[in-house]
Amino acid sequence: MKKIFDLASELGLSEEDILPYGWYIGKVNWKVLNKLKDKEKGKLILVSAMNPTPLGEGKTTTTIGLGDALNLLSYKTIICIREPSMGPFFGVKGGAIGGGKSKVIPEENINLHFTGDIHAVTSANNLLSAMLDNHIYQGNELEIDINQIFWKRCIDMNDRQLRFIVSGLGGKGNGIPREDGFDITAASEVMAILSLSREIQELKDRLGNIIVGINKKGNPVFSRDLEAHKSMAVLLKDALSPNLVQTLEGTPAFVHGGPFANIAHGCNSLISTDMALRLADFVVTEAGFGADLGAEKFFNIKCRIGNLKPNVVILVATIRALKYHGGVKKDWEKENIDALEKGLPNLLHHIYIIKEIFGLPVVVAINIFSTDTEKEINFVMNTLKEKGVR
Amino acid sequence: MKKIFDLASELGLSEEDILPYGWYIGKVNWKVLNKLKDKEKGKLILVSAMNPTPLGEGKTTTTIGLGDALNLLSYKTIICIREPSMGPFFGVKGGAIGGGKSKVIPEENINLHFTGDIHAVTSANNLLSAMLDNHIYQGNELEIDINQIFWKRCIDMNDRQLRFIVSGLGGKGNGIPREDGFDITAASEVMAILSLSREIQELKDRLGNIIVGINKKGNPVFSRDLEAHKSMAVLLKDALSPNLVQTLEGTPAFVHGGPFANIAHGCNSLISTDMALRLADFVVTEAGFGADLGAEKFFNIKCRIGNLKPNVVILVATIRALKYHGGVKKDWEKENIDALEKGLPNLLHHIYIIKEIFGLPVVVAINIFSTDTEKEINFVMNTLKEKGVR
Amino acid sequence: MKKIFDLASELGLSEEDILPYGWYIGKVNWKVLNKLKDKEKGKLILVSAMNPTPLGEGKTTTTIGLGDALNLLSYKTIICIREPSMGPFFGVKGGAIGGGKSKVIPEENINLHFTGDIHAVTSANNLLSAMLDNHIYQGNELEIDINQIFWKRCIDMNDRQLRFIVSGLGGKGNGIPREDGFDITAASEVMAILSLSREIQELKDRLGNIIVGINKKGNPVFSRDLEAHKSMAVLLKDALSPNLVQTLEGTPAFVHGGPFANIAHGCNSLISTDMALRLADFVVTEAGFGADLGAEKFFNIKCRIGNLKPNVVILVATIRALKYHGGVKKDWEKENIDALEKGLPNLLHHIYIIKEIFGLPVVVAINIFSTDTEKEINFVMNTLKEKGVR
Amino acid sequence: MKKIFDLASELGLSEEDILPYGWYIGKVNWKVLNKLKDKEKGKLILVSAMNPTPLGEGKTTTTIGLGDALNLLSYKTIICIREPSMGPFFGVKGGAIGGGKSKVIPEENINLHFTGDIHAVTSANNLLSAMLDNHIYQGNELEIDINQIFWKRCIDMNDRQLRFIVSGLGGKGNGIPREDGFDITAASEVMAILSLSREIQELKDRLGNIIVGINKKGNPVFSRDLEAHKSMAVLLKDALSPNLVQTLEGTPAFVHGGPFANIAHGCNSLISTDMALRLADFVVTEAGFGADLGAEKFFNIKCRIGNLKPNVVILVATIRALKYHGGVKKDWEKENIDALEKGLPNLLHHIYIIKEIFGLPVVVAINIFSTDTEKEINFVMNTLKEKGVR
Repeated sequence: MKKIFDLASELGLSEEDILPYGWYIGKVNWKVLNKLKDKEKGKLILVSAMNPTPLGEGKTTTTIGLGDALNLLSYKTIICIREPSMGPFFGVKGGAIGGGKSKVIPEENINLHFTGDIHAVTSANNLLSAMLDNHIYQGNELEIDINQIFWKRCIDMNDRQLRFIVSGLGGKGNGIPREDGFDITAASEVMAILSLSREIQELKDRLGNIIVGINKKGNPVFSRDLEAHKSMAVLLKDALSPNLVQTLEGTPAFVHGGPFANIAHGCNSLISTDMALRLADFVVTEAGFGADLGAEKFFNIKCRIGNLKPNVVILVATIRALKYHGGVKKDWEKENIDALEKGLPNLLHHIYIIKEIFGLPVVVAINIFSTDTEKEINFVMNTLKEKGVR
Repeated sequence: MKKIFDLASELGLSEEDILPYGWYIGKVNWKVLNKLKDKEKGKLILVSAMNPTPLGEGKTTTTIGLGDALNLLSYKTIICIREPSMGPFFGVKGGAIGGGKSKVIPEENINLHFTGDIHAVTSANNLLSAMLDNHIYQGNELEIDINQIFWKRCIDMNDRQLRFIVSGLGGKGNGIPREDGFDITAASEVMAILSLSREIQELKDRLGNIIVGINKKGNPVFSRDLEAHKSMAVLLKDALSPNLVQTLEGTPAFVHGGPFANIAHGCNSLISTDMALRLADFVVTEAGFGADLGAEKFFNIKCRIGNLKPNVVILVATIRALKYHGGVKKDWEKENIDALEKGLPNLLHHIYIIKEIFGLPVVVAINIFSTDTEKEINFVMNTLKEKGVR
Repeated sequence: MKKIFDLASELGLSEEDILPYGWYIGKVNWKVLNKLKDKEKGKLILVSAMNPTPLGEGKTTTTIGLGDALNLLSYKTIICIREPSMGPFFGVKGGAIGGGKSKVIPEENINLHFTGDIHAVTSANNLLSAMLDNHIYQGNELEIDINQIFWKRCIDMNDRQLRFIVSGLGGKGNGIPREDGFDITAASEVMAILSLSREIQELKDRLGNIIVGINKKGNPVFSRDLEAHKSMAVLLKDALSPNLVQTLEGTPAFVHGGPFANIAHGCNSLISTDMALRLADFVVTEAGFGADLGAEKFFNIKCRIGNLKPNVVILVATIRALKYHGGVKKDWEKENIDALEKGLPNLLHHIYIIKEIFGLPVVVAINIFSTDTEKEINFVMNTLKEKGVR
Repeated sequence: MKKIFDLASELGLSEEDILPYGWYIGKVNWKVLNKLKDKEKGKLILVSAMNPTPLGEGKTTTTIGLGDALNLLSYKTIICIREPSMGPFFGVKGGAIGGGKSKVIPEENINLHFTGDIHAVTSANNLLSAMLDNHIYQGNELEIDINQIFWKRCIDMNDRQLRFIVSGLGGKGNGIPREDGFDITAASEVMAILSLSREIQELKDRLGNIIVGINKKGNPVFSRDLEAHKSMAVLLKDALSPNLVQTLEGTPAFVHGGPFANIAHGCNSLISTDMALRLADFVVTEAGFGADLGAEKFFNIKCRIGNLKPNVVILVATIRALKYHGGVKKDWEKENIDALEKGLPNLLHHIYIIKEIFGLPVVVAINIFSTDTEKEINFVMNTLKEKGVR
């Protein structure tokens, strides 16, 4: 494993540009983006997929594998992916950092506290909650309607017990009773804001624009009305700087920003993608949850704000997921051309979205499993060829 | 400011012994203590005080100043203090890291996320909560009585709204309703355990011994019955390693462990004190909240477990705090020998505790303010001299 | 005002048949129905209306007025209406006991505690709640899922504060926390059951069939599983007996049973209607909330269970409510033939429902106000005549 | 059983004075007291006891038995006792209406809804709660501190689930969340007020003086500030009139007012005692929970307000309860002079209180059980004789 200083040096970064977190993880100061602003951007490759299935298609694995391959071919390449929540790690899912030979390291650190970004988001989110409740407790000068508070607390934990609570109990001296609840940190608006901000003032402004609730006159109350956004930005200062690690093959990777796709744009931070484009020839990134959801948000939210345009879109598919979409809910390891045929329209529709709606070149990547038969692979390849897809 | 690698090197630590967190903060691997176990211990100086007043007496400032002084006199000295909660930083109090020329740096980092220890304690604490509630939700095989759960959630925030809550609302699929609440992280039993453990197996064992509640037969239910202690220890693995920083004067300082004195022993981690004693000639440490509370816990909890014995105890006093104890609740900057005389018995009793109860040599340190008059200072000095105190 | 004994005597009832509640109110023992079972039934007149408007159409007033008129014409007539909730009396609405010269008396008593029927329903409802929660508290032998309890407490009060609560707080000894709430008593299933039962065993059986929630295996848990229905029936024993009062004109009236039309059948008790039919030549009763809702429930629920068939249906309409349905939301006292024309289809559709769907003769009663003009009245009369309606 | 009209007639009451509730229960209009105000009062006999034991001493039974005896001896006698809660009836205890041959009838009616007094108290209590919460919901013009509301809801049910609740949940439109709870109706201040008021204006004034909570300035908020006391008095209008029933032997009995002794004066209504004293030669009444608690409250609260003075106090004791006080917690049916001797000081102290503190003549009534031995009875009689007690 390369030491973080060597990894940074390969990218042309100096010691002042980076903060180590142990020997193999570092943060590239967010101010570096400003220094690089006149450098030409490299090419952007977006990895998406057809509709997800319980089987997993290997988007992150493909993203990392493709980055490693380009790097081996001597193209200066950086991989950009999301940082994982700790919550799901102790819950059902494994960490979302690739698998097999295609993964980012040091694995355990990335999966646990990493550089503390998610803790910082949790803290900033809950500081706003505490300031909001304290404001109400101290007399509620802003006349916030206790029954119309939208801002929820958050925790980086899969903890259903906290989803809906009544807080402020315990009588005099212990707050004002109200209905409250916790979201998972990755679903917090603070995480979305962090992942879309490129420097500290922008971060602060976006934090100030958060609507926490409605006052008694029916008007919105903002985070900035509580003067909370400044302290929140202080707590997020370091979290704004992209995290630099490497793959098993030594390819540099930014693992930064982790908003959920169900409530936000669902991809890694804009600042890390932007910085990577100015440091490398190729940047391989990922937009989860199918081309209709993840990629669509990538184009409409992240690309618009960041003035990005992918040069090509990779759609990941697997033979067995195609069969799943074709109606086969078990025994997907058995050859089944009929199911493949029924499942292919799902993939074709995603191709259509990328090509016709967004007007981008598309490449289908079939992630091969040992149970796929040659006949099945050929069937898919031929069908795609007939449709003019590579 | 010395880089962390240079600071570590001065203490005879190698690169493998230490993990950087930025350029000026590092963690000394907890395994280093084992390597040092045959080294002779240096001398231990405990700084305590008479009963605290709202004015502050300057215990931490004295601790750091004394360490700096010894260091300047070419005695190899390490300072050991607690790490600050983030909660109070955004609340009323300033960070507990000294003041003026006697403080540890880099100040802002230490006061905010630092090396993430407190976030790790929060996560471990709340993982146990989530596993406990999940156990009940999944059928409650251990028959835990929902009305007799002692384990509370925690947050590193001064947030009165969360002290008493009802959690598990929201109907089917969202937990089981029960009375619940959050403590501040520094008051969590996990913080107390972390601060008393010297290696990972001891940490795990102590975590497993936590009593979370009572079952329907009236017997205690332990953390280990839920198999929670193992995952908790994984989350606390790095937090166990002492944090190394420096004072403004460049004296090395361990800032590690932060349990509150109201519910726990209230001083820095045992592992950092123990490690410091084997790396330096003098170790200056602090036990808050008066000699009767903080020092008593230091002796009876930390010294017993860690086989420590201070060589001398410093009692910090101020002229104005003596006047406060003498009944003067304002205008303490005015000369007032009468009030001093009435307040001195408080100091004398603390001297008595240290000398007669614990049998240790005691030195009184008067922290001088510009408003103290010569007459006042002499009065105190003479009284103490009469009583045979230095 | 006739004394209750005289009123009862006019109906051929003896002293043993009736229980006085003060001098002007009495209960006719529910067992009397059995004594009368071979008597031929009188004719049943149902008063309903077109869709209700905020203006009120005067259904109850028409019902009482019609009863008084028939009585004056020497037809032995009894009026059957619902008994009012106390809740709305202290809230917005006036008591639902008629108005002007067409009302039942003694007014205040009927509007307040009356004969205690609604208190009895509240008590029975809440006894089931208390027995349910006590069962869970004592070990929950029936394994009732705390997140799937359907049975709510009730109160005879417009009290929004109690709609959604968390009960069982206060720690050990004070119940098991759960999400809970209060309905208004008139909306309780107990009120619906009381209003559909003709004797005590039927009442007990229906009470035993209440589903209170779901157990952990997914099966329903019944009131009878808790042995609650017997005590509930004891509490409702007197409430089952119809209340006898009189109109201002001295016509006997049963004011008994008060279920809300939004969740139940919304008309007076079956036992009082049945009893009245055997004691009189004509019974005038009422089914609220429009012919599509109230009358439909009357036919499909009450008539089926009670083997009733109205001889004629009266549809109450007012000129101003027709204008309201025609789009005029203010100034309805002004002549407006255009609005009348637009509003008439509402009335015509209700006529259609009664005639074509339920196959019953229908009479439209126009409740005249002093602001109605002759032209308006003639317009409505002529239109109805053209459609073949009287 | 005498009909209520005959019973009333024996007491010299006319038909206008009384309202029947069925054939055997009636209310004597509260205005009758005013008509009787110039009549001389009869003699008042108070029945109290030594400290209560789990065995029961038979105070109510003795009260009724004594009344029946005086009546048989042709003294015009009325018994005055409390009316029972329904709650305990369905809970642990039997109804408090005597036992064996000494009880009031019709038993079941008295134990269940009776004349609805307790329902009226519940309604009035909860109307104040609803008006209070509605006031807060509508903008809280009185600035009531939501954390300092003392007024609780109530229910006539032993329902631990409702003791501590959070009400006002359910979001916008459903109240304001706060900590709340239900007392049992007999422990409501409204019950205490009803039992101490002699006419409607006094009742209204006392209701208006209820303190419901504290406002933000720290001042008390009264029921009258919410204009709630008037509606409450309307709801209690009939409940103010004493309930007249009879014993098994046909002695008239007022069973009216039922405040708990733990929070209020714990005896029957002042109006019924006062009325009885003007209608009879002897009135036998009861003050529960020992001479130190029940009788003390009777003297200091009820007698002061009502200008009453008992002519004699009966202290009820049993051989077995004396043994219980002597330390025998089982086998109390066995002869045990030693235990009797140890238990007697309890009785003697109660005698002392009545004679020496309150200066009233005292008679001890030993309620004999079949297991008492002659030796035991003689021992007690002789000891009392020695002390000069009859």
